[in-house]
Amino acid sequence: MTTTMQQQISLITLGISDLARSKRFYGEGFGWKPVFETPGIVFYQMNGLMLGLWPTLDLEADMQRPGQRPGQRPGLARPGAFALAHNVPAQADVQPLLDRLAVAGGRMLRLADAPPHGGFRGYVADPDDHAWEIAWNPSWPIDADGRVTFGI
Amino acid sequence: MTTTMQQQISLITLGISDLARSKRFYGEGFGWKPVFETPGIVFYQMNGLMLGLWPTLDLEADMQRPGQRPGQRPGLARPGAFALAHNVPAQADVQPLLDRLAVAGGRMLRLADAPPHGGFRGYVADPDDHAWEIAWNPSWPIDADGRVTFGI
Repeated sequence: MTTTMQQQISLITLGISDLARSKRFYGEGFGWKPVFETPGIVFYQMNGLMLGLWPTLDLEADMQRPGQRPGQRPGLARPGAFALAHNVPAQADVQPLLDRLAVAGGRMLRLADAPPHGGFRGYVADPDDHAWEIAWNPSWPIDADGRVTFGI
Repeated sequence: MTTTMQQQISLITLGISDLARSKRFYGEGFGWKPVFETPGIVFYQMNGLMLGLWPTLDLEADMQRPGQRPGQRPGLARPGAFALAHNVPAQADVQPLLDRLAVAGGRMLRLADAPPHGGFRGYVADPDDHAWEIAWNPSWPIDADGRVTFGI
């Protein structure tokens, strides 16, 4: 670790099935405006962290944790359908933190590697199978208080 | 609404099944220290928002959304096992926002009322069944930037 661990959550990613439907919910419901969007993903700048909407299948593939379990009603959120993220200041911090979390009772979902969208990340599940992404993202600055700002 | 809607998330609550096991994961894994804890709940002060660990059954009961679906392996996270929260500045803001979210494509889970622990809250599911708590909590101040601070 290059710094003391911040008590911060950088990003909440919700797996969604219809981006237009979700954008209406967050836009007309909460009145929130995206800070960035493509046909495949939407980000909102929140209070020192980001909220992301991403197709569930993409999120599940990125986490390498398939969803839909037998007997589950389609269309409902699934264990693979959300992830919390904690961003670290350096690429070299990612895998050691994943390892430490696994030792502390977590379950490794994917070892750290470089995703196509840049940066470096891996996933670990907490003891109840809640997914945490540990990421180095040089384009999202983190201030001294752990507040993350969207950047490209 | 008494103010313009902030783009803020106040609290992430994870449903957990063993508080000691989870505290070890977050304490030894991330190095995070609780800001408040009882035998039934733990809160961490994060970067302008809170992370809460709460027994899954309590969270599901509070949301009025039962979990465990047929065929699902016990112990895994379930649709009812987490909730995001958006806090508003006044009790009178809670139900109107829930209504607006329902109109925008959400599904009402529970109408706003006063929980035993104080404040006022209701729940709505987003289009993919992700649960959002809309709450008025006079003891958690929200600053002008939407950053929430733990208070009692």
